[in-house]
Amino acid sequence: MQAETGGKVRYGMIGGGPGAFIGAAHRRAAALDGALELVCGTFSRDPANNGATGRELGLAPARVHASWQTLLADEARLPPEQRVELLVIVTPNDLHVPIAQAALTAGFHVFSEKPAGISLAEVQRLADTLAALPLRYALAHSYLGYPLVWEARERVARGELGALRKIHVEYPQGWLAQDLAATGNRQAAWRDDPAASGPGGCLGDIGTHAFSLAEFIGGQPITRLSAQLRSHLPGRRLDDDVMVLFETAAGASGSLLASQVCIGEENGLRIRLYGERGSLEWRQQEPNSLLQRSLDQPPQDLRAGLGLPWLSAGTQQRLRLPAGHPEGYLEALANLYRQLAAAIRDPADPAAGLPGIHTGWRGLAFIETALASHRRQGAWTPLPTPGA
Amino acid sequence: MQAETGGKVRYGMIGGGPGAFIGAAHRRAAALDGALELVCGTFSRDPANNGATGRELGLAPARVHASWQTLLADEARLPPEQRVELLVIVTPNDLHVPIAQAALTAGFHVFSEKPAGISLAEVQRLADTLAALPLRYALAHSYLGYPLVWEARERVARGELGALRKIHVEYPQGWLAQDLAATGNRQAAWRDDPAASGPGGCLGDIGTHAFSLAEFIGGQPITRLSAQLRSHLPGRRLDDDVMVLFETAAGASGSLLASQVCIGEENGLRIRLYGERGSLEWRQQEPNSLLQRSLDQPPQDLRAGLGLPWLSAGTQQRLRLPAGHPEGYLEALANLYRQLAAAIRDPADPAAGLPGIHTGWRGLAFIETALASHRRQGAWTPLPTPGA
Amino acid sequence: MQAETGGKVRYGMIGGGPGAFIGAAHRRAAALDGALELVCGTFSRDPANNGATGRELGLAPARVHASWQTLLADEARLPPEQRVELLVIVTPNDLHVPIAQAALTAGFHVFSEKPAGISLAEVQRLADTLAALPLRYALAHSYLGYPLVWEARERVARGELGALRKIHVEYPQGWLAQDLAATGNRQAAWRDDPAASGPGGCLGDIGTHAFSLAEFIGGQPITRLSAQLRSHLPGRRLDDDVMVLFETAAGASGSLLASQVCIGEENGLRIRLYGERGSLEWRQQEPNSLLQRSLDQPPQDLRAGLGLPWLSAGTQQRLRLPAGHPEGYLEALANLYRQLAAAIRDPADPAAGLPGIHTGWRGLAFIETALASHRRQGAWTPLPTPGA
Amino acid sequence: MQAETGGKVRYGMIGGGPGAFIGAAHRRAAALDGALELVCGTFSRDPANNGATGRELGLAPARVHASWQTLLADEARLPPEQRVELLVIVTPNDLHVPIAQAALTAGFHVFSEKPAGISLAEVQRLADTLAALPLRYALAHSYLGYPLVWEARERVARGELGALRKIHVEYPQGWLAQDLAATGNRQAAWRDDPAASGPGGCLGDIGTHAFSLAEFIGGQPITRLSAQLRSHLPGRRLDDDVMVLFETAAGASGSLLASQVCIGEENGLRIRLYGERGSLEWRQQEPNSLLQRSLDQPPQDLRAGLGLPWLSAGTQQRLRLPAGHPEGYLEALANLYRQLAAAIRDPADPAAGLPGIHTGWRGLAFIETALASHRRQGAWTPLPTPGA
Repeated sequence: MQAETGGKVRYGMIGGGPGAFIGAAHRRAAALDGALELVCGTFSRDPANNGATGRELGLAPARVHASWQTLLADEARLPPEQRVELLVIVTPNDLHVPIAQAALTAGFHVFSEKPAGISLAEVQRLADTLAALPLRYALAHSYLGYPLVWEARERVARGELGALRKIHVEYPQGWLAQDLAATGNRQAAWRDDPAASGPGGCLGDIGTHAFSLAEFIGGQPITRLSAQLRSHLPGRRLDDDVMVLFETAAGASGSLLASQVCIGEENGLRIRLYGERGSLEWRQQEPNSLLQRSLDQPPQDLRAGLGLPWLSAGTQQRLRLPAGHPEGYLEALANLYRQLAAAIRDPADPAAGLPGIHTGWRGLAFIETALASHRRQGAWTPLPTPGA
Repeated sequence: MQAETGGKVRYGMIGGGPGAFIGAAHRRAAALDGALELVCGTFSRDPANNGATGRELGLAPARVHASWQTLLADEARLPPEQRVELLVIVTPNDLHVPIAQAALTAGFHVFSEKPAGISLAEVQRLADTLAALPLRYALAHSYLGYPLVWEARERVARGELGALRKIHVEYPQGWLAQDLAATGNRQAAWRDDPAASGPGGCLGDIGTHAFSLAEFIGGQPITRLSAQLRSHLPGRRLDDDVMVLFETAAGASGSLLASQVCIGEENGLRIRLYGERGSLEWRQQEPNSLLQRSLDQPPQDLRAGLGLPWLSAGTQQRLRLPAGHPEGYLEALANLYRQLAAAIRDPADPAAGLPGIHTGWRGLAFIETALASHRRQGAWTPLPTPGA
Repeated sequence: MQAETGGKVRYGMIGGGPGAFIGAAHRRAAALDGALELVCGTFSRDPANNGATGRELGLAPARVHASWQTLLADEARLPPEQRVELLVIVTPNDLHVPIAQAALTAGFHVFSEKPAGISLAEVQRLADTLAALPLRYALAHSYLGYPLVWEARERVARGELGALRKIHVEYPQGWLAQDLAATGNRQAAWRDDPAASGPGGCLGDIGTHAFSLAEFIGGQPITRLSAQLRSHLPGRRLDDDVMVLFETAAGASGSLLASQVCIGEENGLRIRLYGERGSLEWRQQEPNSLLQRSLDQPPQDLRAGLGLPWLSAGTQQRLRLPAGHPEGYLEALANLYRQLAAAIRDPADPAAGLPGIHTGWRGLAFIETALASHRRQGAWTPLPTPGA
Repeated sequence: MQAETGGKVRYGMIGGGPGAFIGAAHRRAAALDGALELVCGTFSRDPANNGATGRELGLAPARVHASWQTLLADEARLPPEQRVELLVIVTPNDLHVPIAQAALTAGFHVFSEKPAGISLAEVQRLADTLAALPLRYALAHSYLGYPLVWEARERVARGELGALRKIHVEYPQGWLAQDLAATGNRQAAWRDDPAASGPGGCLGDIGTHAFSLAEFIGGQPITRLSAQLRSHLPGRRLDDDVMVLFETAAGASGSLLASQVCIGEENGLRIRLYGERGSLEWRQQEPNSLLQRSLDQPPQDLRAGLGLPWLSAGTQQRLRLPAGHPEGYLEALANLYRQLAAAIRDPADPAAGLPGIHTGWRGLAFIETALASHRRQGAWTPLPTPGA
C-alpha cells in the first residue's frame, strides 16, 4: 500500500485542531492507505488545545510545535530521516500562501487546503516560487479524487460525448442558512471574515469546488463569465450565494450555482455535461454511480467497483473495493494523498490529475473574475490566463 | 364525474391531426373524467388527413370542418344544444391568438395550447377582448395541473418555507440535439420557423413552462432577468438553449435553465424553492413525490395519494387514485380540462389555479424580455407588468 | 383511437358505486382512448345511490338498472345497435362468476375484476362456459397492462436473460395495518368476509397480482409452492400477509411476498428475474423504468416512451406519450380496455397478452394451493394444471 | 482519535495476502482512525508472497512470520511493549476457530472474519474458552458497524415501530453466477470447498450477514425457520442461493433471501422492518439514508451526518463527517476496529453493539438449522439457543 522506496512519507499538519472536521478528515485520509505518517504538527494557536491534540494523536511533545514558523525552523534541524517531508495546511485561507511559501522555501512538499490563497497575485507568486523548486504542491480539491470523476474526465477526453455543448454544475449547501457565526461556530465565523477567507465567501468555499470540477471533467478552460452574488443574512460580509453563467474555450456554455443558504441541502455537488453525441451526470452524494446517456442507447449507470470491465485503468487505480461496497468522501481525499505520496517518492511520476498550483491559480482567477462581473451587474468578463 | 348541470361540455378541436402527439393527448385528457365530449373539429389542412382523423374519432362528417373559419361559422348555425361550446386550439403558435380571438368573439370558450400567442401585443389584445366577455379562456400549461404542484404552491403560500430566497427551475430536453427538422419531423420544423413559432424557440416551447411553474409555485412575479440564448445547430433559426438568472418581486433570486439539446434528457422539468425556514423540490418525471426539507427535521417525501392526511384539499381534488397508483401527465392535463369544464358550467366558479390569460401574458412577457436581455449581452432587464 | 368498425364498444358496469375507487378507475380507463362508451349500469344495491351514480354519469334513467339480473334482462330486449355489448364486473369477488356466467350466457362480453372467482371449481365451470361461446372474457389484472411489463416479458421470451434461475416478486401494502373494517371502511370490510372475498384475503386481493405478474413475465408456470399465511389483527378472519416460496416448470425458484400490514408501503409491487446471462427489475410505483443488467455491461435503464428504439413493437403499442411524460396506473388499465375493445370488434384479433380466463384459473389455483400448503405447515404442494 | 491510554493497539494479521481484497480492507479500516498499528503478520502460505506483502506493508522482516503458529510463538517472546496485542484473522473459515483458540490461549485479543467457525460445536468450544479469559473477541460483521444500522436498532429498541410484525432481509450478489472457481479465482475456489468454507456456501458467506443484521436491528432472536437451498452450477458443491422463512421470539415473521447468482446485483444487502406503528428500511449500497415511515406522517429520510439532531448519540459516535460527505464500507468496518481498540484499552468498556462470540454462535446456529431444514424439504426447524 505504501510507496516502494523510502517508507511512509512523513507529514506534519498545520491547523486542524478541535472543532475543525477537516483536520481529522485529512488525517484519516492520509492514514487510509498506509502511505503517510503524521510526525509533527501545530494544530491550534491555543497552547492547551495544541498540546492536547498532539497527545491525542500520539505525537512526541517535541514534535508538537507552537506555531508554523517554529515548526518549520525546528523540523529543519532534525536529521533528514526523521525530518518531516510534507506539510499539510488546513488553516483559514489567508495563511495558505504564506505557509506554503515558507514551507517550499524550507524544502518541504506542500498539501494545501483550497483555495490556494486569497488573491490571484499571491498565488501567482507562489507558482513562481514553485516553478523553481523540485518539490510537490497539491491542493485538497477532494472531489477531484473520486474514481468516477476520473472516469467522467476520461470519457470526455476520448470523445465519447463529442464536442461539449453544455456544462451545468451546482453545489448547494444549507448550513449557513442561519447565522451560525453569531452562535459561536468558528467554522462559520472565519469564513465570513474577509481577512481570513479572502474576498469570496461561498464563492471561495464551494464555488471553487464546482469550478474546478467543471474544468477537470470538461477538459477545457472557462474563458468568460457573468456572475451574480448575494449575501442573505443581515451583517454577513461575504457572499453566501453564487450564480454564474459561463463559456469555455471550446465553445460550450453553462451555469454554475453554488449556495450555502439552501436549507435541506447537504453537499449537493452535481455536474452534468452534454455533448453532440451523449451526456454524463455525476452527483457527489451518490458518488459510486455515473450516468451516461447517448443518442440511441438506454441510459447506463456506470457503477464503480474494482474490476468492473467498463472502467478505465485510472479509475481502477482510484478504487479500493469490489462493486457494492460504497466508497465515499474520505476515500476520495485519500486518493489525492496516495497519489501525492507516490509522487514525492518518485520525482518522475507525472501525478496525472492531481490538483496542484494550476488548479489553485484557476480557482483564484474564478473568484476574482466573478467578483468583478458582479460589481458590474453581471457583465460578461473574461478570466485571466496564466502568463497573460 | 361530469359537471352537475347541462351534461358534458361539447368541445371542438382545431389542429391535432396525425403525427402531433399533443392532439391525442388533449383528447385523452378531455375524455378521462367524462366531463367533455368531442363534437367537431378541423384537424389538418390536408382534406384527406382531416377527414380520416374525423372518421377515426367517430365524428359525423358534417362536424369535420375544412378550416377553423368554417368551423366557427358552421357551428354557430347549429342549435344551441348541439353547438360546440369550447374550442381547443392545438395549432402552431402563430394561430393561437387569431383563432382564440375569433372563437371568443363568436361566443365560444377557449382552451389554447401555450404560449398564448407570438407577441405580447397580440396577447394583450386578446386579454382586452376576453375582459369584456362572459367566457372562459384556459391555457394548456399541463404541468400546473399536477396535484403536488398545487401542494407546493399551497405550502409556499401558507408560509411553510418562510420568505423565499432562491428559486431554481430547469427543463432540459434532448430531442432537438440533432437536426430533426431536416429529416422531415414536422413538430421540429414549425418550432424552428419564426413565422409559426414566434420569436422564441426553446424559450417559448419549454422555457415558458419553467417560467410559469416558478411563478405558480413561488407565488411572486419575476421582475427582472438576465438571459443567454443559443442555437446549436447550423441553420437553426431559433434558440434551442436558454439560461436565465432572475429576481422576484419579493426579493428572491434564481435561475431558469431550459434546453432542447441535452442528449439523454427526456422532459426533465424540476423546481426547487428555498426559503428562510425550509425548501421544496419537485420533479415532473416522478410527479408523485414532493420533497420537503426544513431546518431541524429529516427530509420528508410528501407522497401523493387520495386521502393522505398531509395533503391539502386542493391537492386531493386533483387526485384520482389512492397512494401507490402512479398518476402522470395525462392526469395533470385532465385536471385542467376538468376544472375548465366545471367553470364553464358554473360561471361563479373561481377556477382557482387554472392557468388563463394572465399566465399567457406573463409567458410572452418572459419571452420578449429574455430576447431583449440576450440582445444586450445578458443585461438585466425588467419584465413588463400588465397595465403598465 | 377507436375500433375501425362498429363505433365505440358499448359497455355497462356492475358495481362501482360511491366509495369504491375501482369503479371510477375502470370508467376513466375505459374512456381514455375513446374506444368504449358507458351506456348502462347497476352501481349499488341502494336505489338512491344507484340512481345518483347513474345521473352523475349522464346515463339515461332507463339504463340505470336495479340489479344485475334486471340489467341483463332489460338490455337483452334493446335493439342490437343500442344494446350493451360488454359488461364490466367490479363487485366483490363472490359475484364475479355468477354475473360473468349469466352475462356470457346472455351473449355479452365480460371484463371482470380479479380474482376470477372464489373457487377453482367455479372458475373451471366459467371456463367451460366460455370455451363454447364466441365471446371475449378479460380479467382486470391491471399491472399486466403496463408497457414495460410487456417489454420484460418479451425480453425473457427472446432469451436475453438465458434460462431463468430466480424470480422474486413482492407486493407490500400497508392500508390494512389497522382495523379499518371496524371503522366502517367498506372496502376493508368485504375483503375480510370469506363469503364475499373467498377463502383468501391478502392472498386473493394482491397475492394473485404478484403471482400473475411472475407467470406473465417469467413465461413459465409455477408448479409447486410452500406458503405461510398470517392474520395480524384480532378478529380478522382472512390472511393479511403471505410468504411463498415456489418453483417453476423450467427449473427456476423464487419467492412471493405479499402483505397488507406493511406500514408505509403503498402499492409496492416489484419483480426481479435473474437468468444465466442477465436480470430484469421492474417496480410498479416507478413504472416507466425497467432495469436490465447483464454479465459484462453497465446496468441499463430501459426507459419507456413512444419511439424509443430499444422498445419492442408490443411495448410501443401500449404507450401513448413520448419519453418523460409519465404514464401510470390508469394508462395500464386502459391498455387492457383498448385491447379488449379491439378484440371485440375483430374476432380474429389474438389479443396477445390480454389476461383472460386462463390467468383467472391460475390465480385460483394459486390461492387454493397456498391455503393447502399453509394448512400443512408450509409443506411443498403442487399447483393443479388445467385439464388435470 | 486513538485510545486515551497505552497508545495505538498493536495488531497482527493472519491471512490477507495478495488477491484477497478483505485483507487490505481490514488494514485500511484499522488505520483509518489512528487507533491501531500493524506490527506483524503472516499473509500467505507462499513464502515469497508472504515476504513481499510484509515488505509492502513496511513491516520489519522479523515480524513477518512463516505461519500463524510461529507468529504466536515468536510474538509471545517479545517484550510486552512491543508484542502484538490483537490478532486479526482473515483466513478461510476452517481456520477461524483453531487460530482464535490458540491466540486467546496465548493471551491475545482476537478480531475474526465471519463466520466464527465451521460448526456450532467448535464455536461453542471457543465461547467456553473465551468465557474464562479477560480478552476481547470481535467478529467482522462489517455491516453492523454502519451508523444508520445502529440508528435503526435504537429506534426499534425504543419502540418507535411498536411490536414488530415483519422482518424482510435480503442479500443478493451476482459474482458467482458463473464458474469463477474454474477460472482460477481463489476467492471463489475456497468458498466452494466444504473443508475450507464449512457446510454452508452462500449461507455462511452472506446469509450470516443478513441473519445477523435482522437480529441486530430487530432485537429479537429468530427461533425457527424453513429453508430452501440451491446450487446452480454443475459441480458446485455448496449452496449458492438461500431462501428462508422465519419467526422470531417476539412473534414477528419474515424472510431472508441470499444469493450469489443474481446477475447484476453487487452487494444488495437490504432490510425492512414493519411494526404496529411504523417501519424502517435500510440498504447497504446507499448506507447514508434510513427510511422511516409511520401511520400518519410522510415518509422520512433519516439522513446520516455528524450533528444531525434526529440521530442518537450512538449513531453520532459512529460518524466522522458532516451530512453530505458519504461514508461507506471501510468506515463501517473501521467503526468495529475503533470500538474494539477502545475496549481493549478499557476493560470496563461495554462495547455496546460490537459483534462478538454470541453473534458468531448465532450465525452457526443459523447455518446448521437452515441446512437441517433444507434436508427435510424445508420443514420448520427450531434454532438452538445458547446453553440449551
